[in-house]
Amino acid sequence: MLLVSLMRYIAKVEVSLKLGHSDPEGETTRNSLAELNYPVRDVRVSKVYTILLDASSAEDAERMVEEMCRRLLANPVKDDYKIYIEASE
Amino acid sequence: MLLVSLMRYIAKVEVSLKLGHSDPEGETTRNSLAELNYPVRDVRVSKVYTILLDASSAEDAERMVEEMCRRLLANPVKDDYKIYIEASE
Repeated sequence: MLLVSLMRYIAKVEVSLKLGHSDPEGETTRNSLAELNYPVRDVRVSKVYTILLDASSAEDAERMVEEMCRRLLANPVKDDYKIYIEASE
Repeated sequence: MLLVSLMRYIAKVEVSLKLGHSDPEGETTRNSLAELNYPVRDVRVSKVYTILLDASSAEDAERMVEEMCRRLLANPVKDDYKIYIEASE
């Protein structure tokens, strides 16, 4: 019998468009801010998933979240992603 | 005549739902990840605006971005926001 104690981790995944892919939401936001007279040159919009999960170690959590990104959260054609892991209290 | 030299700053604004507000996109993501057998307890989705802007100082940039949040980027009823400012190279 194998006992593995699980800890709780918080993973933050920032999914953003690769450079060169047009970002219509960012462009519309830039235009709206420019109309309000803010000296804004560029706006990019990205998405952050804050994931609470159980894992045996921070490395294990990172491995799972990396896999989640490839399978579900990010589109490899147009998205880049960054993963940050921290232990939950 | 007043000359003010402007610098370029990058502001990151994370807009997330206040606690207690339901997050259907996060819930759907959690269910999809659970179906793939990941030990995920909760997922929340938030949005990050990366804004390139001109300002006379970091304080000036922060003041403007704070105002942008109140006027356009965040909904005071349901959103919280955090602002991070850094100088662009």
